[in-house]
Amino acid sequence: MDKKHLRRVIETALTEDAGNGDLTTLCTVKPGTQITGRFLSKGRGVLCGADAAKAVFAYLDENILLNFHFQDGDPLSPGDVIAEISGDAVSILTGERTALNLMQHMSGIATRTREAVELVKDYPVKILDTRKTTPGLRMLEKYAVRIGGGHNHRFSLSDGILIKDNHIQAAGSITNAVTAARGRAPFTLKIEVETETLAQVQEALDAKADIIMLDNMTVEQMKDAVMLIGRRAIVEASGNMGQRDLRAVAATGVDCISIGDLTNSVQPLDISLKLKI
Amino acid sequence: MDKKHLRRVIETALTEDAGNGDLTTLCTVKPGTQITGRFLSKGRGVLCGADAAKAVFAYLDENILLNFHFQDGDPLSPGDVIAEISGDAVSILTGERTALNLMQHMSGIATRTREAVELVKDYPVKILDTRKTTPGLRMLEKYAVRIGGGHNHRFSLSDGILIKDNHIQAAGSITNAVTAARGRAPFTLKIEVETETLAQVQEALDAKADIIMLDNMTVEQMKDAVMLIGRRAIVEASGNMGQRDLRAVAATGVDCISIGDLTNSVQPLDISLKLKI
Amino acid sequence: MDKKHLRRVIETALTEDAGNGDLTTLCTVKPGTQITGRFLSKGRGVLCGADAAKAVFAYLDENILLNFHFQDGDPLSPGDVIAEISGDAVSILTGERTALNLMQHMSGIATRTREAVELVKDYPVKILDTRKTTPGLRMLEKYAVRIGGGHNHRFSLSDGILIKDNHIQAAGSITNAVTAARGRAPFTLKIEVETETLAQVQEALDAKADIIMLDNMTVEQMKDAVMLIGRRAIVEASGNMGQRDLRAVAATGVDCISIGDLTNSVQPLDISLKLKI
Amino acid sequence: MDKKHLRRVIETALTEDAGNGDLTTLCTVKPGTQITGRFLSKGRGVLCGADAAKAVFAYLDENILLNFHFQDGDPLSPGDVIAEISGDAVSILTGERTALNLMQHMSGIATRTREAVELVKDYPVKILDTRKTTPGLRMLEKYAVRIGGGHNHRFSLSDGILIKDNHIQAAGSITNAVTAARGRAPFTLKIEVETETLAQVQEALDAKADIIMLDNMTVEQMKDAVMLIGRRAIVEASGNMGQRDLRAVAATGVDCISIGDLTNSVQPLDISLKLKI
Amino acid sequence: MDKKHLRRVIETALTEDAGNGDLTTLCTVKPGTQITGRFLSKGRGVLCGADAAKAVFAYLDENILLNFHFQDGDPLSPGDVIAEISGDAVSILTGERTALNLMQHMSGIATRTREAVELVKDYPVKILDTRKTTPGLRMLEKYAVRIGGGHNHRFSLSDGILIKDNHIQAAGSITNAVTAARGRAPFTLKIEVETETLAQVQEALDAKADIIMLDNMTVEQMKDAVMLIGRRAIVEASGNMGQRDLRAVAATGVDCISIGDLTNSVQPLDISLKLKI
Amino acid sequence: MDKKHLRRVIETALTEDAGNGDLTTLCTVKPGTQITGRFLSKGRGVLCGADAAKAVFAYLDENILLNFHFQDGDPLSPGDVIAEISGDAVSILTGERTALNLMQHMSGIATRTREAVELVKDYPVKILDTRKTTPGLRMLEKYAVRIGGGHNHRFSLSDGILIKDNHIQAAGSITNAVTAARGRAPFTLKIEVETETLAQVQEALDAKADIIMLDNMTVEQMKDAVMLIGRRAIVEASGNMGQRDLRAVAATGVDCISIGDLTNSVQPLDISLKLKI
Repeated sequence: MDKKHLRRVIETALTEDAGNGDLTTLCTVKPGTQITGRFLSKGRGVLCGADAAKAVFAYLDENILLNFHFQDGDPLSPGDVIAEISGDAVSILTGERTALNLMQHMSGIATRTREAVELVKDYPVKILDTRKTTPGLRMLEKYAVRIGGGHNHRFSLSDGILIKDNHIQAAGSITNAVTAARGRAPFTLKIEVETETLAQVQEALDAKADIIMLDNMTVEQMKDAVMLIGRRAIVEASGNMGQRDLRAVAATGVDCISIGDLTNSVQPLDISLKLKI
Repeated sequence: MDKKHLRRVIETALTEDAGNGDLTTLCTVKPGTQITGRFLSKGRGVLCGADAAKAVFAYLDENILLNFHFQDGDPLSPGDVIAEISGDAVSILTGERTALNLMQHMSGIATRTREAVELVKDYPVKILDTRKTTPGLRMLEKYAVRIGGGHNHRFSLSDGILIKDNHIQAAGSITNAVTAARGRAPFTLKIEVETETLAQVQEALDAKADIIMLDNMTVEQMKDAVMLIGRRAIVEASGNMGQRDLRAVAATGVDCISIGDLTNSVQPLDISLKLKI
Repeated sequence: MDKKHLRRVIETALTEDAGNGDLTTLCTVKPGTQITGRFLSKGRGVLCGADAAKAVFAYLDENILLNFHFQDGDPLSPGDVIAEISGDAVSILTGERTALNLMQHMSGIATRTREAVELVKDYPVKILDTRKTTPGLRMLEKYAVRIGGGHNHRFSLSDGILIKDNHIQAAGSITNAVTAARGRAPFTLKIEVETETLAQVQEALDAKADIIMLDNMTVEQMKDAVMLIGRRAIVEASGNMGQRDLRAVAATGVDCISIGDLTNSVQPLDISLKLKI
Repeated sequence: MDKKHLRRVIETALTEDAGNGDLTTLCTVKPGTQITGRFLSKGRGVLCGADAAKAVFAYLDENILLNFHFQDGDPLSPGDVIAEISGDAVSILTGERTALNLMQHMSGIATRTREAVELVKDYPVKILDTRKTTPGLRMLEKYAVRIGGGHNHRFSLSDGILIKDNHIQAAGSITNAVTAARGRAPFTLKIEVETETLAQVQEALDAKADIIMLDNMTVEQMKDAVMLIGRRAIVEASGNMGQRDLRAVAATGVDCISIGDLTNSVQPLDISLKLKI
Repeated sequence: MDKKHLRRVIETALTEDAGNGDLTTLCTVKPGTQITGRFLSKGRGVLCGADAAKAVFAYLDENILLNFHFQDGDPLSPGDVIAEISGDAVSILTGERTALNLMQHMSGIATRTREAVELVKDYPVKILDTRKTTPGLRMLEKYAVRIGGGHNHRFSLSDGILIKDNHIQAAGSITNAVTAARGRAPFTLKIEVETETLAQVQEALDAKADIIMLDNMTVEQMKDAVMLIGRRAIVEASGNMGQRDLRAVAATGVDCISIGDLTNSVQPLDISLKLKI
Repeated sequence: MDKKHLRRVIETALTEDAGNGDLTTLCTVKPGTQITGRFLSKGRGVLCGADAAKAVFAYLDENILLNFHFQDGDPLSPGDVIAEISGDAVSILTGERTALNLMQHMSGIATRTREAVELVKDYPVKILDTRKTTPGLRMLEKYAVRIGGGHNHRFSLSDGILIKDNHIQAAGSITNAVTAARGRAPFTLKIEVETETLAQVQEALDAKADIIMLDNMTVEQMKDAVMLIGRRAIVEASGNMGQRDLRAVAATGVDCISIGDLTNSVQPLDISLKLKI
């Protein structure tokens, strides 16, 4: 995770949550008061966001001590003491919510990803994320997917070629679109084509697409497509995969399954900070 | 919703998703190609984020036409044509994902809020949000809560006084904390105290707190607290309210119920963009 | 005072004053030359801005030693050695003007506020600032008011409700305006109404305004208003208070007096830096 | 005045004053309400800041109509209608304070400058500003000085050579310092030397300084210095000139008089906005 | 070319060149003076940067008329009138240098690229750029390469996999490095390996690298490598290609040739602006 | 060189080159791997940019050790070990290209400047740069000119007065233009006039211009002009000086020669980083 980017996200979040300081603490807590506390897991899942929490408190006050007992990717059970913190009360109380919001969100994504990965662990298939991310948090969310054991699809429109139906319409045919992309896109990028029928799969194959996405197909259709492709291209299953039977999809032989819900429909992992003054 | 802030959120999101342009479209679609499309609701809920979607496309290309048939707060059913769009293909395809991500997320929040508001509509109670928001998106999320019929709790640590257990410990007692806050906080702010027992409620009352929060109390405890307070302070119910029976909580006579899940555990409303070239 | 904000103010100021470095020093002083110096008070007043001065030099050069003998809020007399500084000549000479400009301005505000506070010290009344501040420096100026013993009115339009004549006109009546605000404003905010006549005071009282501002009233009118209100609302005196007899105003029994001149018409405290090479 | 810079100043000011919008207006004024108003002068002075006021409202709402009857530099009397404004109530009320704060401050500087210029109008002398400006507002303040008829001294440490006592000490002598500067400074810059005695004036002359500053000298000393210099260098009088008899100083024959108080000790011109809904 | 990015580059450039305005013009040209002018080519080459020039003047003054007679990619001869401009003198003179600096630099790159492309036009080979670009201008420089008929290699370290000797050392072998990359890199990216010997080429082939770079090989070695690879991977020639005989390199059968000098050693195309007042 | 500015340039460059990290290294190099390396000169020239290289690695990772054996201004020969580096492999490989791009570019400028300075070392003449710089890098480029032994002309349009033909046309005559500038420009600036004929030189002299630029004159014309001026103004030779015989120009007696090519047509000095894992 890029430190500069993380710092900018945190600066935005802290400005949003405490742009003029934490009034309540400033009014009720004596300057210089020292406190200690523990970050506790209240649910079951996968930790993600330790660096984000560290960066929040480092941003506010370089004298805060924050010691993690678990690291990103570790499984958590209710009651686990994730980390211990000590230092100036104003700094800790000012950063508490921002640190928790980030860590809960990222851990929620890592947990959901881990569940998907576990479900299909008997198949040689990768779980992928999508671009259905929260505006401003994509880098953190894609990091959380990796921590959960998933893989990242392209980061943005600028670093991958994914030819969808609109591009196909605009170019006239899959063949035209793939040919155009091969001539003009950076030669370091693979070319992926989205298909909805076996006929489209065949056309993408003929055009020598590097990756073929099977969009919203039934399990039967996916099996046929995988057979047809015969390892001549990478195969990605896509379309509402958050609500599908992932094992059945994996069993079709696809190489990867992309799931928008990993980042689009996040159930945060419940983490709290218990303080002692 | 503040336009400058919205613009900055969108700039961040577009830089993230298309910092170097939409390669696929640039490679496969002829410059100058015009397209039209429709934003369709695929679920049932409350629209929110029309301005955000407009701002995304206005940011990319001032010649895009985007005409909304519904406005923020309107109920949506599957199949509803939310808006129609036409203009340059590159601009529309570049902004599509960012506009959808924002609108789905905000509509998800408005929908969830509306459900809570509807549940308690027979009681004179307000549904409130919290500071459990997505870093960087708080202003948009709090706007969505209002569109859903909810009310906003304080925006940040800097514009409200909410005395929690840590502040009470640090100040020595509720009385001390409230007194300190009354002397030092901006006199335009009400003073809220978080309580977990009736004894604390009584102490907060005696200290003349303006608002008393009942945190994680049972319905019975809340009834007793409301009785004890006797309208001498505003009463807020809080604590896992996303998983509670809201009608039972409302029936206790509290003035407002704050629900972290409104913004913390968002199920996006499914909206898609269907294009025609 | 928020460190990040202070840092941004200082970055702007230094870019403005030394964006391409201090040419004269670079041309005439040998690199590596060490100097020492003293910040001297040349007037009588209240020190404010020590942290700002520290931040200026810390920003330029972390090896500068700057040791304050007085702290914010301390009274100063002509000749007092406020602080001693030593380190690299280029850094000190580059930061000198910016540090002095900030410290003189903030000390000027604290001094003026202290004078007002002293004048009314026999009355239970708070001296308040307003939003008549220097663009970009509000946070520092409001901090200086607090250091001088004053209190802060709302920080901005976004964190307080102050219903003025225009709002009353637009809403149709004070009653309508207060009712609307009570229904729609964050419930953590008190509602203040600006009044110019006793009839308006009565209407604001009836509408249960939390704070009633008496704008540009005579001392006699203020006395009547305070009587009429009878502690059912907080009373704020306002309107050219910088030119009024503050003791007479305080004697009317108002709870607070807001003075735009505290920040709007600042006489800087004369502070200089005497260097020795 | 640079438009981009002005825009950035205004963005900072509006974020500061209305980062989350104008709550009171949003709560009490019906969306879409149109209002008109007049900016009135309540004092006597010189208008400055019309462009700043225009930029504030243009930033908030491009549909606001703002029509100035006076322009920067025009004299104002109490009661003069400086400008008329009409448009959306939310936009006008949100920008009111920021526009007034800027215009009052800049007009205060222009007024003070004009007074100084008038005082010495019978002498061929320029009134100059200094670097004693408000952090972040230097460009606007120096513009206001020009509008008042004054001239600008160097903008910053980066674009002028002014050799002060510290530089002289560090270089060993005025001669050394001037020689070093002549060899190393951009050859487009004149070289100015600060002097406190006639002996120093003589040394600066011998070193062929382009400009000689007479710092804190008596009128008699200044006369002698002017005589000694005999037009071989430009002569600047400096040092507490805000409290000096400017006509006597001008009569000594100096070419310019720099006055820190022009920007350092600003008495704002009283301007108000009267609205009609 | 991304408009937002271009705007930011231009803002930086104009702040650098005219942060406080164009003093000379402000001092000598009457406000409101209108001028016209012509951008003339004084050399032979390929135009690039019309949009950049347009954006410079649009940024300064939306009323400037700038009409291009040539567009990006068009060949230029000495004397060609590239564009005509008319409008406010201050705006045009302020933007002149920035517009010329950008257009000359970008046209220089396009011209150099076109020369390389022409040299090898009889071979099915692409001319590629590298990451040896000017800090802050990469997007504009890579655009200029495309305008010249070249293709872009990866934009940055973040969007391509290029395994160099250091990675190979760190991973233990080419095989290990490729295997690691295949498992961990975004699956949308091709994997490129840098080789210096035929043995390394063979190992890269065996590891199924998608692209094999031949670094600093002789023409003979390149021929052998191309033969060995037998179209099983894309072949890129690299290493001081700016000083090599490009036709001989192309004749070896490589698929592309990357040339750092295209952007690293730019000879600007001479373009001037002749004005008439 | 201003540290803040340098930091911003580097942040921009690193965001451009590694905004989402160095994928290849992250995929192939084990976290925590330590490496060492040497920056080697592969050409002959003048080192410039050591601070820039240090700032790149300090920005990425404060634990990188970077030890320079040469400093800015030192001559380099092929094979010289400029510096040694050691630390975390990810950090070093991520910063390598940015550090090299900056150092090669700046050293190229210093080298070219040194060559010009050496050529005319027998004459009392300064070599000057111009405003023909790379957008965003002017401060670094002008620093490199100084390191090479050259002097800087004005930094920007905002800090120097250079009256060109367009200004003369607009003002009506050289006399008018100089008079206007003398009255309105900051009095700290010298006034320079561009001339193309002896008649213009005479007029500039009569108007008491401080500096007279001889633009595109022959050596004979320059000799005549220098004679005519007779040390009553500083004389600058300008116009394609990169392609002229500098010794012949210097021999005419001009005071300085400005050369756009110093920064406009940069041949980078070849520097490489050899690593050992």
